[in-house]
Amino acid sequence: MSFNPKHILGIKDLSAEEINFILDTADSFKEINTRQIKKVPTLRGKTVVNLFFEASTRTRTSFEIAGKRLSADTVNISASSSSVVKGETLEDTAKNIQAMHPDIIVMRHSASGSCQYLADRLDCSVINAGDGMHEHPSQALLDAFTIREHKGSVEGLTVAIIGDITHSRVVRSDIYCLAKLGARVRLAGPGTMLPPGIEKLGCEVFNNLEDAIRDADVVMMLRIQRERQGAPLIPSVREYARFFGLNGNKMELAKEDAIVMHPGPINRGVELGSIIADGPQNVILNQVENGVAVRMALLYLVAGGEKLQENC
Amino acid sequence: MSFNPKHILGIKDLSAEEINFILDTADSFKEINTRQIKKVPTLRGKTVVNLFFEASTRTRTSFEIAGKRLSADTVNISASSSSVVKGETLEDTAKNIQAMHPDIIVMRHSASGSCQYLADRLDCSVINAGDGMHEHPSQALLDAFTIREHKGSVEGLTVAIIGDITHSRVVRSDIYCLAKLGARVRLAGPGTMLPPGIEKLGCEVFNNLEDAIRDADVVMMLRIQRERQGAPLIPSVREYARFFGLNGNKMELAKEDAIVMHPGPINRGVELGSIIADGPQNVILNQVENGVAVRMALLYLVAGGEKLQENC
Amino acid sequence: MSFNPKHILGIKDLSAEEINFILDTADSFKEINTRQIKKVPTLRGKTVVNLFFEASTRTRTSFEIAGKRLSADTVNISASSSSVVKGETLEDTAKNIQAMHPDIIVMRHSASGSCQYLADRLDCSVINAGDGMHEHPSQALLDAFTIREHKGSVEGLTVAIIGDITHSRVVRSDIYCLAKLGARVRLAGPGTMLPPGIEKLGCEVFNNLEDAIRDADVVMMLRIQRERQGAPLIPSVREYARFFGLNGNKMELAKEDAIVMHPGPINRGVELGSIIADGPQNVILNQVENGVAVRMALLYLVAGGEKLQENC
Repeated sequence: MSFNPKHILGIKDLSAEEINFILDTADSFKEINTRQIKKVPTLRGKTVVNLFFEASTRTRTSFEIAGKRLSADTVNISASSSSVVKGETLEDTAKNIQAMHPDIIVMRHSASGSCQYLADRLDCSVINAGDGMHEHPSQALLDAFTIREHKGSVEGLTVAIIGDITHSRVVRSDIYCLAKLGARVRLAGPGTMLPPGIEKLGCEVFNNLEDAIRDADVVMMLRIQRERQGAPLIPSVREYARFFGLNGNKMELAKEDAIVMHPGPINRGVELGSIIADGPQNVILNQVENGVAVRMALLYLVAGGEKLQENC
Repeated sequence: MSFNPKHILGIKDLSAEEINFILDTADSFKEINTRQIKKVPTLRGKTVVNLFFEASTRTRTSFEIAGKRLSADTVNISASSSSVVKGETLEDTAKNIQAMHPDIIVMRHSASGSCQYLADRLDCSVINAGDGMHEHPSQALLDAFTIREHKGSVEGLTVAIIGDITHSRVVRSDIYCLAKLGARVRLAGPGTMLPPGIEKLGCEVFNNLEDAIRDADVVMMLRIQRERQGAPLIPSVREYARFFGLNGNKMELAKEDAIVMHPGPINRGVELGSIIADGPQNVILNQVENGVAVRMALLYLVAGGEKLQENC
Repeated sequence: MSFNPKHILGIKDLSAEEINFILDTADSFKEINTRQIKKVPTLRGKTVVNLFFEASTRTRTSFEIAGKRLSADTVNISASSSSVVKGETLEDTAKNIQAMHPDIIVMRHSASGSCQYLADRLDCSVINAGDGMHEHPSQALLDAFTIREHKGSVEGLTVAIIGDITHSRVVRSDIYCLAKLGARVRLAGPGTMLPPGIEKLGCEVFNNLEDAIRDADVVMMLRIQRERQGAPLIPSVREYARFFGLNGNKMELAKEDAIVMHPGPINRGVELGSIIADGPQNVILNQVENGVAVRMALLYLVAGGEKLQENC
């Protein structure tokens, strides 16, 4: 099989076979990151623009390092300094960037659907690095990669995702990805953070953390975005932590060898007690590590994959 | 002919021959930007510092991509993070940067004449990326390049420039450049945006858009800087658009094959209706595309031009 | 002798021999910065992350240029855009970055001891680029390098350091460094800027500038951080300049061939009159120049030094 998508906009439209192909490709890139010389010439002479309308050091840095280790030229453009503040439309901004012949635009934007909107209008490749409350495919892929690495396979596993389901972009991508790969996905969160109808994406919804994580193989905790919430969805962070935070006692409900994941950055004492955040079951830093490999794979595949051979 | 200026500070002091030499050099670089491997080793081991005291994503990104495709090391320094906020003089800031042995400093600054001021005091090359209301030579050169590309030559053409003549840095560079290359330049804008005596630069001044664009080969619309104007120079943006915005009807006054230009970012519905902004006569994205080639040429020429051969 | 420290956290724990080894290494790198092609492949395939929680264009740019001239991939992360604002702990932020396999993290942070704290917890190398009021080793090393360059040796020299001793991070590193290399160090500043007990670091304390600089070989002026001081430590900047600023008259008290240093950015008319700042005795821009060479040496040594040979 060969898979060279023009864009990576979301998980929804990928098949299980395509997802596995991406993960296998990431597998072959992972080792580069631990070499003495962490650099291969694969994307030499390619230009990758990181166009971030929302700040996200973690994701931007991961894509930047992925690009540099593949020898691409990387250019960062952030919202605050961009022409958008001068009254330009998103499409005009993107077309102006495209006119400089980047090969790939990696975009983070607050509007759901914005990456698809641009992909329909641009000739270069677009990778969605998070669009509003819609999708965050590279995060879901690194989550699946990490689960596969620890559990051998995603198929047949029970994955509990806990927290602010409504405002999480990664949860939608995770549900699509894990369901396609054959996992059973359970969600739990406060009623105000559970969007009606979410179960239609292919998951079970619970009202409390305990029922959701019982016998789970994977417990994925979402971030409470304390800096964002104008109108709070929870009475207090402390109450949230009590009911939906994960601690050692609650973790005993999950399988003995269950792993704990989090997209980061974590709020210690809110989603996760330090017992869990620093404990042997957490694989949060593996997720970050695998993020670089997965993003190398995405950059490689949209840039042409095997067709790039003559480049090396 | 060979032309290896130490600095590029403005168009005023360049001859038509020198301008054409730059444009010819840009012509030879343009093709690199559409290659599979968009990179040549010309400026390998050279350091280009983009020193931007005013935000300008577009220009900074264009210079950064130009530098990277020539294999230079590029370093971005922005105003907000710079030592200027710590009370340092511009000259001290620049001399400190120079002490790190950059080959070229590309500078954007709000003070007219600041690039000349530094060029007189530094040993490294300085390229003016816009200094106050004075000059913006790389923009004027990419404008001339784009006109030449579409019209074969600049000589004998009629170019109408419409808008805020007073506050535009590029308009001065454009007038010098186009007049030297043999075009007839016409200006039009609201009275409050027309500086007295501007016709002495070698252009005709009109009070209304219609007279200016009649039979023009090129219509160049300037940006209304809505985010800047403390004391507004126009009663309302809507009135401005009505009298000095370009739409389909007005455009019929220009030659049938006239092209429409804009330095970007555009305000849709203000300077340009979308009919024009998305229409076949506009060459705005060609301008952006050509900007990278023109800036590659400028970096190459100030770095030594043909003398760099041994580098390749 | 060979010296390949895992981290560079401060001068306090370095021996005179180790300091001299670093300076000798910097000596061998200095020449690269004046070549036509300022680039060697020494750190090819290494990733250097500049993690700056406080803005410092000068230091960040110096490390960035040092890294690039050694062919490292450099990634900048600044405080304002970092996850710290999202409630993450410093350790979690650093461990997340480490998970992406950088070889070296260069860190500037407002908290004294923060670099040591991270070095104890990370596997990658940490270079302290200034931690609170604690140490700023690369600055002290470039100071010593510059003194050695101008005076042949540091041993036996009298070095007067004038200004805000309390809030200066570099002064502690300078005292350790110069004392270890055999200089006599004198301090002077307003009483509010002289921390009690500072003489225990191995220096003499004076209440007035004149006594401190009399017959000195080196006069090092510290920066008054006007933008920082909530509770002012001096009645007025003008009074400070009168008593603790350096001018031509006062400079006559020092040795005839004394040199004047300053970590920059300078406040003209405060710490230094322009007579001094632009005079033949000042070596401030040499300090900046040498900073790149010293930082190249630090990056090289923590990355493995001679063991990197196979890389070249």
